[in-house]
Amino acid sequence: MINSNDRLGPLALLVGTWTGTGEGIYPTIATFGYREEIVFSDGGVKPFIGYVQRTSALDDGRPLHAESGYLRWTAGGAEWIIASPTGVTEVHTTHLSVDEAGLDAVFRTVSMSASPTAKRVDSVERRLRLRGDELTYELHMAAVGEQHQLHLTATLRRG
Amino acid sequence: MINSNDRLGPLALLVGTWTGTGEGIYPTIATFGYREEIVFSDGGVKPFIGYVQRTSALDDGRPLHAESGYLRWTAGGAEWIIASPTGVTEVHTTHLSVDEAGLDAVFRTVSMSASPTAKRVDSVERRLRLRGDELTYELHMAAVGEQHQLHLTATLRRG
Repeated sequence: MINSNDRLGPLALLVGTWTGTGEGIYPTIATFGYREEIVFSDGGVKPFIGYVQRTSALDDGRPLHAESGYLRWTAGGAEWIIASPTGVTEVHTTHLSVDEAGLDAVFRTVSMSASPTAKRVDSVERRLRLRGDELTYELHMAAVGEQHQLHLTATLRRG
Repeated sequence: MINSNDRLGPLALLVGTWTGTGEGIYPTIATFGYREEIVFSDGGVKPFIGYVQRTSALDDGRPLHAESGYLRWTAGGAEWIIASPTGVTEVHTTHLSVDEAGLDAVFRTVSMSASPTAKRVDSVERRLRLRGDELTYELHMAAVGEQHQLHLTATLRRG
């Protein structure tokens, strides 16, 4: 049986530091490999977990992306609130599927904001799959005039 | 002369860990005192700084608010991208006033988003005043049906 709790629901399953590698593809860029660290942290009191993420290039280690925010546990689902240094914010909701195998969630955008100088992003979808200490995700995105499609995929291990 | 740089502009002046106390007021709540830590961090490569903040109650130390995001340096100004576990995101812009005395900025909202279960926030304005190693701020807010007014004020020291 999977460890969960009333305050965080199945979000408790995500708490930890996750590291691994991923690949980025998109029609407007060259395919690239990246190293990633994600930290989901529990403050111990409120019904959310903190989220901080950083990636660096596999080839030369230069910093690539970063983002931070919070996952809120709500009756029957979860909300993911994200700020990016690209100037974009995302608010997603999901229904979480949890069974003895693990957790699956597809976070879909309910609203986005962008700063005046941000590149245009029209939609983002974040798919999480947790199996024990392995976390895989896909990020699908419509941006800079391209159709909604796979942009990032990665596999991380809890460290 | 104040230390600044081309990549971060005057945002470089904010980098550090800041701690202090503040007070929260609003028509719908009892006035409260809080302890706060803000970290503005420089990744060393890109034209933004990371922002993480946490407050706890002065009386019993219980966690109160948290938020995170990024300050982007742009030609002639700055953008502040914020995610909160309350389910709200904020995108602000400002012109930064910098002279030998320090830095002053009034960040005004250009867009906000809210998750389906978030309390309603209609506008936020964040005023920063930096003098050496002392950072003071005011946060003005229109929320839950109340008019735009002072909500938070705090004085922090760089540690």
